[in-house]
Amino acid sequence: MQVYLNGEFLDQKEAAVSVADRGFVFGDGVYEVTRVVNGKFFQEEEHLVRLDEGLKGLKINLDEKIRDSIPDISRDLIKRNGLTEGEATVYLQVTRGAAFPRTHTFPDPEVPATVYLSSGPFKPHKELHEKGVEVITVPDVRWTRCNLKTVNLLPNTLARQQARDAGANSAVMIRDGVITESPNANIFAAKGGSLYTFPASNYILNGITRRVVIDIANSLNIPIITEPVRQDDLYDLDELFFTGTTTDIQPIVKVDGQNLGKGEPGEIVRSIQKEYNKRLYG
Amino acid sequence: MQVYLNGEFLDQKEAAVSVADRGFVFGDGVYEVTRVVNGKFFQEEEHLVRLDEGLKGLKINLDEKIRDSIPDISRDLIKRNGLTEGEATVYLQVTRGAAFPRTHTFPDPEVPATVYLSSGPFKPHKELHEKGVEVITVPDVRWTRCNLKTVNLLPNTLARQQARDAGANSAVMIRDGVITESPNANIFAAKGGSLYTFPASNYILNGITRRVVIDIANSLNIPIITEPVRQDDLYDLDELFFTGTTTDIQPIVKVDGQNLGKGEPGEIVRSIQKEYNKRLYG
Repeated sequence: MQVYLNGEFLDQKEAAVSVADRGFVFGDGVYEVTRVVNGKFFQEEEHLVRLDEGLKGLKINLDEKIRDSIPDISRDLIKRNGLTEGEATVYLQVTRGAAFPRTHTFPDPEVPATVYLSSGPFKPHKELHEKGVEVITVPDVRWTRCNLKTVNLLPNTLARQQARDAGANSAVMIRDGVITESPNANIFAAKGGSLYTFPASNYILNGITRRVVIDIANSLNIPIITEPVRQDDLYDLDELFFTGTTTDIQPIVKVDGQNLGKGEPGEIVRSIQKEYNKRLYG
Repeated sequence: MQVYLNGEFLDQKEAAVSVADRGFVFGDGVYEVTRVVNGKFFQEEEHLVRLDEGLKGLKINLDEKIRDSIPDISRDLIKRNGLTEGEATVYLQVTRGAAFPRTHTFPDPEVPATVYLSSGPFKPHKELHEKGVEVITVPDVRWTRCNLKTVNLLPNTLARQQARDAGANSAVMIRDGVITESPNANIFAAKGGSLYTFPASNYILNGITRRVVIDIANSLNIPIITEPVRQDDLYDLDELFFTGTTTDIQPIVKVDGQNLGKGEPGEIVRSIQKEYNKRLYG
């Protein structure tokens, strides 16, 4: 596979960044992952707007010309990798760049941001969408700027690995007694015909797929209540599901070894999946 | 300057890690910084023990032979860089290694950890030690595993930059109404002849210099109370100071534009500095 790094396309095995890159020494950067179906980028503008918000949040100045060329670079990349047919993802990461010596404060004078894009074929997790997944609950130990999609992802990776070690697919994170999100997806709960999801705030990433699902719920006349779900109410819920760019709409049927709702995907998640697939593939 | 990267010594400009390195894409690694005075490593064993604890905390398996050779690599490095006389620092970073494709869960099969060491000349901040520094207060937005010295350092870099933008030297971070630490140093407060410092817990990094200062305080019969200091009590304190490997013992004389204590370094921090310098340079 070829990747793009700072103006060049090269084989992924050759692509390397300086040990002084602030991505490597501080996790000082943001990223986006976009789905591509038969060469068509899904919700591309939304991802790019969120990228801009993240760069602004971190005060990373990305050259405007490079920023504007990201859609072209992305298309060039999937072409070079033979991914214009079928399904693919494009990963984009921007860091504050590389500077010796290492200082917590931003490099002065400023250095060019590091821009990295990769792409690969993508296979949706159809079996998981159909049968649903089992999860564990873990404490949400992340920082309190979860609205920024940064590469400071250690708590996310540790939680996901903890789930795998427990024989589960993923984790539901709990902060102050309520469900926030998963290490790499948002969470929706269904109860009495309404959908509940954590409000867009500094405690969750406002997922692009989350926004699509809210829009779908509105179109289906399913009431959306943007309020946190208490951990104590978990087993009283009718349904629970993940939403995310590579997760799609994934029912959760078991939490900490105990059935959630009927222990199988419910009606609401099925109706959301159906509409979501129309938008993604239609 | 030469650096060490995965078994090789090379010029720092040539040293690069894969874009798939989990340090770069997840901040999935730990680090240590050690002071070197005339070729002598200060508190070396303590840093290595904390490295082991960090690796264990992140479940990174570092090859035992490589782990055991870190002191030799460090000495080789300062020799190659002509740093065996005078003052220097050695920076050491270990990440979970590089693996395509990017997955939150640990690479399976496991990949070798990335090991990176750099060194450079060091000039202590003597003027700041003498006159003291001005700081601002900022919310402590970090995750709640601050006891691990990881490269997920984005909140630290942002806080330090915020301080610089405000014309201050650094920041005092506040969580739940109490002082935790600075973005890159521990904090001690003096009041009525006693020293107060945040207890070693998941909310602070248990600094090597912090431990030396506690030991010095004991030897000077200064009572140490490991209790948090409330932000509300800040201006009632007699003294406040930072401790850290490159910070040394740094008095804080102004907080958010207002004098702390007498607005100049106090007696206790002076006595600690004196003893600390004996241990570091003696």
